[in-house]
Amino acid sequence: MKLDQIETPAALIDIARMQKNIARMQGHMNTLGVAFRPHVKTTKCIDVVRAQIAAGARGITVSTLKEAEAFFAAGVRDILYAVSMAPSKLPRAFALRRQGCDLKLVVDNPNAAAAIAAFGDQHGETFEVWIEVDTDGHRSGITPEQDTLLEVGRILHENGVKVGGVMTHAGSSYELDTPDALAALAEQERAGCVRAAQRLRETGIACPAVSVGSTPTALAATQLEGVTEVRAGVYVLFDLVMHNVGVCALDDIALSVLATVIGHQADKGWAILDAGWMAMSRDRGTSKQSHDFGYGQPCLLNGTPLLGYVISGANQEHGILSPTGETAHAEEDITQRFPIGMKLRILPNHACATGAQFPDYHAVAPDGDSVEWRRFQGW
Amino acid sequence: MKLDQIETPAALIDIARMQKNIARMQGHMNTLGVAFRPHVKTTKCIDVVRAQIAAGARGITVSTLKEAEAFFAAGVRDILYAVSMAPSKLPRAFALRRQGCDLKLVVDNPNAAAAIAAFGDQHGETFEVWIEVDTDGHRSGITPEQDTLLEVGRILHENGVKVGGVMTHAGSSYELDTPDALAALAEQERAGCVRAAQRLRETGIACPAVSVGSTPTALAATQLEGVTEVRAGVYVLFDLVMHNVGVCALDDIALSVLATVIGHQADKGWAILDAGWMAMSRDRGTSKQSHDFGYGQPCLLNGTPLLGYVISGANQEHGILSPTGETAHAEEDITQRFPIGMKLRILPNHACATGAQFPDYHAVAPDGDSVEWRRFQGW
Repeated sequence: MKLDQIETPAALIDIARMQKNIARMQGHMNTLGVAFRPHVKTTKCIDVVRAQIAAGARGITVSTLKEAEAFFAAGVRDILYAVSMAPSKLPRAFALRRQGCDLKLVVDNPNAAAAIAAFGDQHGETFEVWIEVDTDGHRSGITPEQDTLLEVGRILHENGVKVGGVMTHAGSSYELDTPDALAALAEQERAGCVRAAQRLRETGIACPAVSVGSTPTALAATQLEGVTEVRAGVYVLFDLVMHNVGVCALDDIALSVLATVIGHQADKGWAILDAGWMAMSRDRGTSKQSHDFGYGQPCLLNGTPLLGYVISGANQEHGILSPTGETAHAEEDITQRFPIGMKLRILPNHACATGAQFPDYHAVAPDGDSVEWRRFQGW
Repeated sequence: MKLDQIETPAALIDIARMQKNIARMQGHMNTLGVAFRPHVKTTKCIDVVRAQIAAGARGITVSTLKEAEAFFAAGVRDILYAVSMAPSKLPRAFALRRQGCDLKLVVDNPNAAAAIAAFGDQHGETFEVWIEVDTDGHRSGITPEQDTLLEVGRILHENGVKVGGVMTHAGSSYELDTPDALAALAEQERAGCVRAAQRLRETGIACPAVSVGSTPTALAATQLEGVTEVRAGVYVLFDLVMHNVGVCALDDIALSVLATVIGHQADKGWAILDAGWMAMSRDRGTSKQSHDFGYGQPCLLNGTPLLGYVISGANQEHGILSPTGETAHAEEDITQRFPIGMKLRILPNHACATGAQFPDYHAVAPDGDSVEWRRFQGW
């Protein structure tokens, strides 16, 4: 199907850009001598993950057990469920392991560790657990020097659970925007996670895996001594937030939303599109960054960014395209430049959030032809 | 299924609250002597819409053709597609009408009007179109005094398209928070839409329907002379934005997200939940209102709001529950008050956005038992 035949709004993946992003990240990991485990929460799409694995990824990271189930059914065996385990979810994790899935769980507290140990003991299952380490204070995890780290390790190790490794995610990298700051955080992430593994090993726990990552720190890292693998998700598509962080160019962004002009408010300089927040998502991640892209950056159908215009507002199924800055556009400009029926592509703030609004992507080949790639929703 | 058996995160609808909200709106419309046409974009759920129709709703409003197709398949015939028509979508609208759906389209510009007329002429179909009127400057539509209104009416009328009515949506009501301001906007919405119908009628176009509405103006309206029907969507569930606007109490909010405590950062006073923005949506609609609820208001499992706590941050699958205000909570407070595995219900900022994150609702009866109600995604 050609672009002008696709009903709007639609989520487009530019295959050539996606493959370039995959090759860039995998190449960087190869150079650094670490394995790469992509986070598939960004796309929840088997076609994308197959491309990541074909390029050299080893295993995947998931954010939900539904992802684990869907990707295991599609043939991926090595899966890290990277959200601290809720004891009530253990039966689903157990079922996956019994089917042969090499599912690794994550904990960052003694209670969940004890619950996993007790469940494993009760059901005769040796779970593998990685301990979550907090290296930047942005969310979950145990800091490397906390005694809780060793307590959790001990609870697992002494109760028949395999401590497979430590993992951390320096998500505060999204708030940075200079190469030096990103490189410093990458080193902080590496050093903290390696230190946590070292402390566990000193108590007699093998802790083979040392897993770090976020898209910005993964791309900024220059050496990863002691690290065995890196995780990253959004790099596969990139978005305007990552552009502001400084790790991709506008023309690296592989996800866009195809939209149609359906109206104008000429006196305000507005063109109204049929892509509102239901299509773009409510993510306003660029609002606190150096360049606020509103609800997205409009581009021509061929991908050329329409600099000087932005999606300035959104209702559920209406997006407002308007000029940025002080320059007033004449009435005829907006209606003539963006006539009724014109199709545009909008680069999103956050690829993970925008993708989630759609049941499928249209994957666009360099010749302009496209195929549908399913993605899934829910938990 | 009982609440404590439902896997988290999950979207819960409190059936008793929903029925109360439906009865309140329908009762108000009955008192005002107008028909009520609920906007089903809020829930996209056939079970909810059946309850609205059972209470007296006449026809529905949709925001996508997919909604029109799904609800027509479920037996609803009278459907207003309330987004200005993109000419490229006419084949789908035509297919629905040929199947017997009484689908009404909306336009606010001469080009789309001409496209509908041309398509109808080519295919021997008499489309029905309602003209969108702008009564508050917040988005789309033609203001009542603009000549374009009559031009669009003429293009339709002279080319074999039925001008079924005028419709307006005073969406700027979401920015208000006093009864007087809401009542004034309701009157502005009514008067503007009635005026537009009057102008069209003066040119010989019958324009039978005069349709207005948004949840706040619908509830605030005290007289609707000249109006034939009202549309509203979010009233059926309500949310924190509507609470801040002043049209519902916290205990009217029928949608909540069931979540589990999965961790803590005790020194920061945080409990970490397994409901992040993928569950709550990225909607931060209360951020500019009188009370900022972050990503939502946590409640106990029985629905009691935990005043003094808020969902202060969210990553994709992590929500951060933290105390509001200056009061520091002792370390033991957060881990003891919100132990690992504890379940909470979170009231959302925006029911339309939060619901869209889920493939189904769990509809909870007063006895605590629940059933699944499907909702659909996409366009």
